[in-house]
Amino acid sequence: MIYLDNAATTKMYKECMDVFEKYACEDYYNPSALYSQSMIGGSVVKAARENIAKRLSCLPSEIYFTASGSEGDNMAFMSTIKQKKGKILISNDEHAAVFNTACHLKEMGFDLDFVEVDRYGRVNEADFRAKMSKDVIFCSIMHVCNETGAMNPIKTLCKIAKEINPKVIFHADGVQAFGKVPVNLKSLNVDVYTISSHKIHGPKGVGAIFIKDAVHPKTFIFGGGQENNIRSATENVPGIAAFSKAIDIKFANMDEDIKKAKEIQKMIYDKVATFEDCIINTNLDESSPYIVSFSLKNVRGEGVVHTLEAKDIIIGTGSACSAKKGLKRIPLALNLDGAYHNGMLRISFDVNDNIEDIKVALNELSKAIDIERNLVK
Amino acid sequence: MIYLDNAATTKMYKECMDVFEKYACEDYYNPSALYSQSMIGGSVVKAARENIAKRLSCLPSEIYFTASGSEGDNMAFMSTIKQKKGKILISNDEHAAVFNTACHLKEMGFDLDFVEVDRYGRVNEADFRAKMSKDVIFCSIMHVCNETGAMNPIKTLCKIAKEINPKVIFHADGVQAFGKVPVNLKSLNVDVYTISSHKIHGPKGVGAIFIKDAVHPKTFIFGGGQENNIRSATENVPGIAAFSKAIDIKFANMDEDIKKAKEIQKMIYDKVATFEDCIINTNLDESSPYIVSFSLKNVRGEGVVHTLEAKDIIIGTGSACSAKKGLKRIPLALNLDGAYHNGMLRISFDVNDNIEDIKVALNELSKAIDIERNLVK
Repeated sequence: MIYLDNAATTKMYKECMDVFEKYACEDYYNPSALYSQSMIGGSVVKAARENIAKRLSCLPSEIYFTASGSEGDNMAFMSTIKQKKGKILISNDEHAAVFNTACHLKEMGFDLDFVEVDRYGRVNEADFRAKMSKDVIFCSIMHVCNETGAMNPIKTLCKIAKEINPKVIFHADGVQAFGKVPVNLKSLNVDVYTISSHKIHGPKGVGAIFIKDAVHPKTFIFGGGQENNIRSATENVPGIAAFSKAIDIKFANMDEDIKKAKEIQKMIYDKVATFEDCIINTNLDESSPYIVSFSLKNVRGEGVVHTLEAKDIIIGTGSACSAKKGLKRIPLALNLDGAYHNGMLRISFDVNDNIEDIKVALNELSKAIDIERNLVK
Repeated sequence: MIYLDNAATTKMYKECMDVFEKYACEDYYNPSALYSQSMIGGSVVKAARENIAKRLSCLPSEIYFTASGSEGDNMAFMSTIKQKKGKILISNDEHAAVFNTACHLKEMGFDLDFVEVDRYGRVNEADFRAKMSKDVIFCSIMHVCNETGAMNPIKTLCKIAKEINPKVIFHADGVQAFGKVPVNLKSLNVDVYTISSHKIHGPKGVGAIFIKDAVHPKTFIFGGGQENNIRSATENVPGIAAFSKAIDIKFANMDEDIKKAKEIQKMIYDKVATFEDCIINTNLDESSPYIVSFSLKNVRGEGVVHTLEAKDIIIGTGSACSAKKGLKRIPLALNLDGAYHNGMLRISFDVNDNIEDIKVALNELSKAIDIERNLVK
């Protein structure tokens, strides 16, 4: 199996599995039980919170554990918007968890506007400045686009937003950024930032959200008062500890990994650039180094994916989250010609993948495209 | 270590761990990705959903996976209440996830009323009938009380509720019931039912909620459309598969386990009954067989727990969820005399616990109480 859909989900590290097992089968106590305050459960969650805070340059009190990136994106809106009306501004290629939450709030009476992105999925700064106004109470711009890998200039956008409305809440979905590119929240100056575990080889069902203490978030899940009464539920100690372990591993060699990833990305890019009638959606200069997205003219991406699957090679058709509903929101946001809409594909690798495997996959991809175009039967 | 706080959380079964590892480290694909429809991820979630539906006597389409019992309890309200106002009726010893969600809705403008419970924490049927009225749009009564183990007559209460308002949504929190006592949703006729994994030796961070198809629930978490668009997020395949495994194990010998548990419960009960100035909060005839709750006069339960902890024996002080905040809501609901409020303790065992260990724990408990009462220094 050659797996090249790491932006969708990743294989859990063995080291994370060991940590998970320890807290699931040995030190499995309920960390909110009285006795646990002096025992292992409570301290493990505390240590993981401190670990994330250190990596992101924020306070431990500003980190809340969640069960997913999607939950974090929902919380970002629901726990911080206190007004009954006002304008919300998001980019038009946001992840479905942001996009659909914003659309829900529009139905609830909020105004909603969309910032345009360039053909690589990166927010158009001029359009952002034009659409940002004093009545915008909440902005959500993803740090790294899950579809194309485009990296947005969050620091600049946040600065623009706060110049226009100092009270705006600025959220960045960092699910595809955290653990893959450096993230310094003090420098970015965002108010809310979402991260997820299973995109960086931690367990599924775990994530976290940064909310600046000054925002004073509202409760998202009511109950026993866990997560400082913002998100109640018995703490998923094994999941949280394993997430923390994945972070340790991902951060250990980040600079070196990025360098290596850039080389792999360039190699994939160069091969994809040889495909006929193919538009590359990833700009190497302003993207995560882990994604190459492209669109093929008059090709069903779905067909290509299935042909490759039969050869034990996995690539993605855009994100699972948007692909599922067959929506064309992202190709439209990228302003792709209609002939390219069905042919959007995404290769997202891990830095430790075998280079020869990736080369094999790219050759098979080339053949699969030919098959789909009926050039080869 | 003698662990007697299984109503708080449990040790994950080794068999569940193996299943978890398989889907975290081997078949780890994103089940909502296109290729996964024909691969393992999607079918595992489908099989788990069918397993739960079969155990509960409902349709697979009526089961939605969640990240916790608390999330399920929140969803029970948020995804099913469509009116802007109306009356909500809950019992006054509900779990904090139900209690605090209901209180939140009261702040939002709904009316809220509380049904009295008897001194064992069981809903008073006459009071329920009296407080149930045509304008009650939502009822939430727990199946098994997490504090005392009291089993509520859900079928009867649901029948009463629907006779008075056929359109009422009836929710039962089944977190302490599922996998421990038989649950037949067709017979109970509730509209919504919450269950959790980590109470029955499955992983933390996983739960599920039954919502009758006819209720047409609203979205709780917006995003990529997973869980029939009601609760988006990349499916926690390892967690869901491991939960399903725990269910298989718990259901394999349920009748026999209940018989065995009743014997252990009786043994604990008889020992506790010998303690001086002690009120037992569990009625053996109408309770889960897995819990014995009692309250000691002029004793700090906290002190007893810590004394036992030093001897590697773990028991609980009521539920973690309510104990954390030091609230006295439950002792008040049970109508306990003030002298007994701080001395509430809960023993909750697993059917496979070593009987001799439990006896040792009970003897140490007896000593710890004496220490706390300054009878022994």
